[in-house]
Amino acid sequence: MSPPLDVDQRPLEPPGAALRRVRARAPLVQNITNFVAMNPAANILLAVGASPAMVHAREEAGEFARIADALTINIGTLSPVWLDGMLVAAAAAADAGKPWVLDPVAVGATALRRDAARRLLELSPSLVRGNASEIIALAPATRVGTGADTSGGKGVDATDPVAAAELAAVTLAERQGCVVAVTGEIDFVTDGRRAAHIANGHVMMPQVTALGCALTGVCGAFLGAGGDPFECTVAALAYYGLAGEHAARGADGPGSFALCFIDALSGLSADALDKDARIAPIAVPSPHDAGRQW
Amino acid sequence: MSPPLDVDQRPLEPPGAALRRVRARAPLVQNITNFVAMNPAANILLAVGASPAMVHAREEAGEFARIADALTINIGTLSPVWLDGMLVAAAAAADAGKPWVLDPVAVGATALRRDAARRLLELSPSLVRGNASEIIALAPATRVGTGADTSGGKGVDATDPVAAAELAAVTLAERQGCVVAVTGEIDFVTDGRRAAHIANGHVMMPQVTALGCALTGVCGAFLGAGGDPFECTVAALAYYGLAGEHAARGADGPGSFALCFIDALSGLSADALDKDARIAPIAVPSPHDAGRQW
Amino acid sequence: MSPPLDVDQRPLEPPGAALRRVRARAPLVQNITNFVAMNPAANILLAVGASPAMVHAREEAGEFARIADALTINIGTLSPVWLDGMLVAAAAAADAGKPWVLDPVAVGATALRRDAARRLLELSPSLVRGNASEIIALAPATRVGTGADTSGGKGVDATDPVAAAELAAVTLAERQGCVVAVTGEIDFVTDGRRAAHIANGHVMMPQVTALGCALTGVCGAFLGAGGDPFECTVAALAYYGLAGEHAARGADGPGSFALCFIDALSGLSADALDKDARIAPIAVPSPHDAGRQW
Repeated sequence: MSPPLDVDQRPLEPPGAALRRVRARAPLVQNITNFVAMNPAANILLAVGASPAMVHAREEAGEFARIADALTINIGTLSPVWLDGMLVAAAAAADAGKPWVLDPVAVGATALRRDAARRLLELSPSLVRGNASEIIALAPATRVGTGADTSGGKGVDATDPVAAAELAAVTLAERQGCVVAVTGEIDFVTDGRRAAHIANGHVMMPQVTALGCALTGVCGAFLGAGGDPFECTVAALAYYGLAGEHAARGADGPGSFALCFIDALSGLSADALDKDARIAPIAVPSPHDAGRQW
Repeated sequence: MSPPLDVDQRPLEPPGAALRRVRARAPLVQNITNFVAMNPAANILLAVGASPAMVHAREEAGEFARIADALTINIGTLSPVWLDGMLVAAAAAADAGKPWVLDPVAVGATALRRDAARRLLELSPSLVRGNASEIIALAPATRVGTGADTSGGKGVDATDPVAAAELAAVTLAERQGCVVAVTGEIDFVTDGRRAAHIANGHVMMPQVTALGCALTGVCGAFLGAGGDPFECTVAALAYYGLAGEHAARGADGPGSFALCFIDALSGLSADALDKDARIAPIAVPSPHDAGRQW
Repeated sequence: MSPPLDVDQRPLEPPGAALRRVRARAPLVQNITNFVAMNPAANILLAVGASPAMVHAREEAGEFARIADALTINIGTLSPVWLDGMLVAAAAAADAGKPWVLDPVAVGATALRRDAARRLLELSPSLVRGNASEIIALAPATRVGTGADTSGGKGVDATDPVAAAELAAVTLAERQGCVVAVTGEIDFVTDGRRAAHIANGHVMMPQVTALGCALTGVCGAFLGAGGDPFECTVAALAYYGLAGEHAARGADGPGSFALCFIDALSGLSADALDKDARIAPIAVPSPHDAGRQW
């Protein structure tokens, strides 16, 4: 990374503070997530120190969202009946002032997904977390070309680098009035007024399914425990990536990595997070910055 | 625990006998469980020595319940269409004289769950297994106060100690004519005529998601292999808790614990269970026992 | 095994070639599978080197099948609404000339399953993969008796040996014009013109749930990466079984085996596969071969 040209000078809260809040408050996090992520998301939320609950049916999802401390919605294995529950839950969370997180899995792939994301975005998510291809698909006009031929991802895996999605993330954050996180090799987070890169993580993480989906749950836990949503998201991403680095030390492959990752999330201290987080506040990217390098 | 005042003197069957029956007969256990528990419940049932089958659709759940040796129903990720399948399956199991187990997850949280539990209880479960908050929610008038402000649990985790639910369990067992198990630090099992405490277990068990849900499946396997339902339930709980104790020896955190637990369930011998089970028959708690200490 | 009487003399492609294609092309594999297998199937496909996507809803399953390189359908936790999505996806895959794999879980158990399998078979699967009891249930007239009393499996586990299903597999392959794989201790694969036994594997594999279902996904990845479907299937089965052999070296039970298996799938080289695959081309079994021994 080149050094930032125009850094917001307000110091960020140390990420360990947000982790301490999660562990002290054990927020009840309602997750409407996909069938692949159900189990690891719950285990990862427990390892983080939160209390996960998977409640999706239209008949109770809104009622539960008012009890929970945060809601997360992931459209991975979408269907119309599940979308109904998502809409009810998101509306209730927004109405009750509870933070909620949207994970628009493979939103570029089908009409059903594009329509679902559009309707969910209308319900004021606190945070949108996706890979580069997904964030570009939500704000396509602002995609920064890299020469590669892409249409926002053919499947669930990103086909664009994070850098190509940074302007899209800013546009989305400004339009929605929310935080947007693009995760990948170097994560990017913005709320339209502030931005940061988070460099923690490990190449083995994308080799385990649903770790991105479970990260959405973890972001929900951090937001649900209180604090500034932008800072909480930055903290959650640094914590998650650092746990990945720790897990890789003991792993012989993606199977053992998945296990070590749960242990690392559980064992990582707030002090270690403050020490080893690699968070770089940067200027908010703008299409008018002619000299910038993305 | 203070020593029991009035112990039923009939000796219980050694728990290893029930485990031997499971392994000898490999009962086919139909599970209608939640999306989080699907995979670990199946793996745990295989490790125990049973043959798991996840069959939930209304169109076949009843037909299958007549083939299976036992049925278990867990309302963790409930929806109306799944409730239809649960009702059909439970009715068929009851009609065919097959044992069936109800796990009323988070029954206190929403109207949908309370209504589902009420309808399922009408279909004569052989065993109801839940945490303290769930059992209290099913027989709320008998909750024993501990001074804490509670309404039967806000999410899926118990907010009440087991001891606070023992009278509720007895009331429920008497009303339903079934076995009731309250699981927690010290498990409590009763059929209204007999009661026991089971002290096996490990603090890491609640840190792995769905272990309670999977225990419901294991209880189904023990009941499906034949024997007295009260004794089978006591044996299943001691076996499960003891495997947790063994698993903890090799675990660095909840990720490795989950793996070691499967290995321990598979490797635990009936002889070891007979030797290390911590089962204490106790007098059936009654609201009329003025001298009792809950 | 006795030596084959009439071996097809054309040499098979070495299995490592198919594995190299999967890793080079990272095929996008759409899986409509059951709730137990969702997570392990995705992790196993990632370990193999493919890109898994779980997309099942009728509203998008066909649209997605045209994007994907292969489709796999597993009826493990079947329901009518999921069957709708399966039929739409299979029809789209067949229409677009994409390979698709059918896994008829427990097809003998209920009317819903028999009807679903019948309708799916009409949509020209490229490969049908099942255990012996399932394949016999699809072509029951050709079951070869072993003296055991069986009706094609009561649950999800096979109650017949592979050998008893070989004639059924040939009949099914000829009738459907597809490849049929019967997996078990010694796998059998045929396309009606060729046949092979694959002896790789380990006794611990059936102790982990959904490994058969995930193998269906792996077969989809091998077919989706191009090549002859019969040879691809043989290669996939040898690769999978050999990974099981490697995994067993480090396992203390089914829990640790599951983890080691993912690591082994990821780490197994194409050269090691070519070296240690135990593939035996055999004559296509026929009911008219009076001297044969099944």
